[in-house]
Amino acid sequence: MGRTSDARERLIETAKTKFYASSYHALGVNEICRAAGVNKGSFYHFFETKRDLVLAVIDEHSCALQAWFDQTRASKGTLTEKVQRILSLCTQELQESQRDDQGVKGCPCGNLALELSTQDERVRLKLQEVFSRFEQGFEAMLRDAANAGEVIVDDPRKTARSLVAVLEGLMLMAKVQDDPTVLRQHESVVTGLLAGSERAMPNSN
Amino acid sequence: MGRTSDARERLIETAKTKFYASSYHALGVNEICRAAGVNKGSFYHFFETKRDLVLAVIDEHSCALQAWFDQTRASKGTLTEKVQRILSLCTQELQESQRDDQGVKGCPCGNLALELSTQDERVRLKLQEVFSRFEQGFEAMLRDAANAGEVIVDDPRKTARSLVAVLEGLMLMAKVQDDPTVLRQHESVVTGLLAGSERAMPNSN
Repeated sequence: MGRTSDARERLIETAKTKFYASSYHALGVNEICRAAGVNKGSFYHFFETKRDLVLAVIDEHSCALQAWFDQTRASKGTLTEKVQRILSLCTQELQESQRDDQGVKGCPCGNLALELSTQDERVRLKLQEVFSRFEQGFEAMLRDAANAGEVIVDDPRKTARSLVAVLEGLMLMAKVQDDPTVLRQHESVVTGLLAGSERAMPNSN
Repeated sequence: MGRTSDARERLIETAKTKFYASSYHALGVNEICRAAGVNKGSFYHFFETKRDLVLAVIDEHSCALQAWFDQTRASKGTLTEKVQRILSLCTQELQESQRDDQGVKGCPCGNLALELSTQDERVRLKLQEVFSRFEQGFEAMLRDAANAGEVIVDDPRKTARSLVAVLEGLMLMAKVQDDPTVLRQHESVVTGLLAGSERAMPNSN
């Protein structure tokens, strides 16, 4: 009975790992329960459906992302260094995802987005919310740098959205090529986006 | 019996549409056969497994992509105009994908890549081949422009790879946001990548 108290957390943690390693449709409630060591009765106590579980998993990712952005925003360094730190965190996640017999697993939210966006409007809206949080994270860093006079950014929201799209594209390519270093190889695309802002600075000579 | 002769094509065409609209795992052989009007015996005459069918679908996409790139490369215009034409073709595909009650469906190959890359090494390698063809298409345009003295490109292969990653990221965001205009909104990321090459030109004054 002692374990029941953390059954919800174990279900979320197990589903997170399992969805990431394979896909939403490839995985049934039975398999999740077995891997989590939770019986089906408990599952349905916490989640009405597998979809409710995936929504909870996405919430988990969202909180983890928020922490990355908060810590990085508060850290010392230039805008470019901060964005490079986010890229390093993503690369680390890709490298860690490789530590079984399967390959690089990409972005957990990107995977779910491409699998489910057209099939489940609630899941799509939840993922849109997460990506939007991701964008706000970059936007806050861009605004900080602009306020500090480090860069001039015409449209920080738009630049932030471009950054997220580029990052998701690179993580997709890392998965297809089974190579976690793709982000590092193409870092110049990201820094180029920021350099676009820097170039807009008035002449300082 | 007359219809049997095109059963393979109908299966591929149906699977292409159905995989695109939902996902690989969400769709069974029975459903594909029913929608294609082909019996299961015929299915297994042409394809040993559903995986063989998805490989054939990916081949189809690959040929369509090749045609886009060949036509665009042969068309008149600057490098930037040609790359913008590819973006427009992608946007058109996203808009057409919206013409049912479901939303924007993203990139057919990107979807399959994120769903299947870690689960099936043969599918991953096939998709890697398609993305590589996509990259070669951009690379050829970059080299043409460099040979014509239009731009100087340090590393056309790398720039081409970045272009593909950016495009895939934008198509993913278009799907999550259910908005086919995302590519147009962020066109500057793509033209910025090309501008990076143009800036490398020697002073012409």
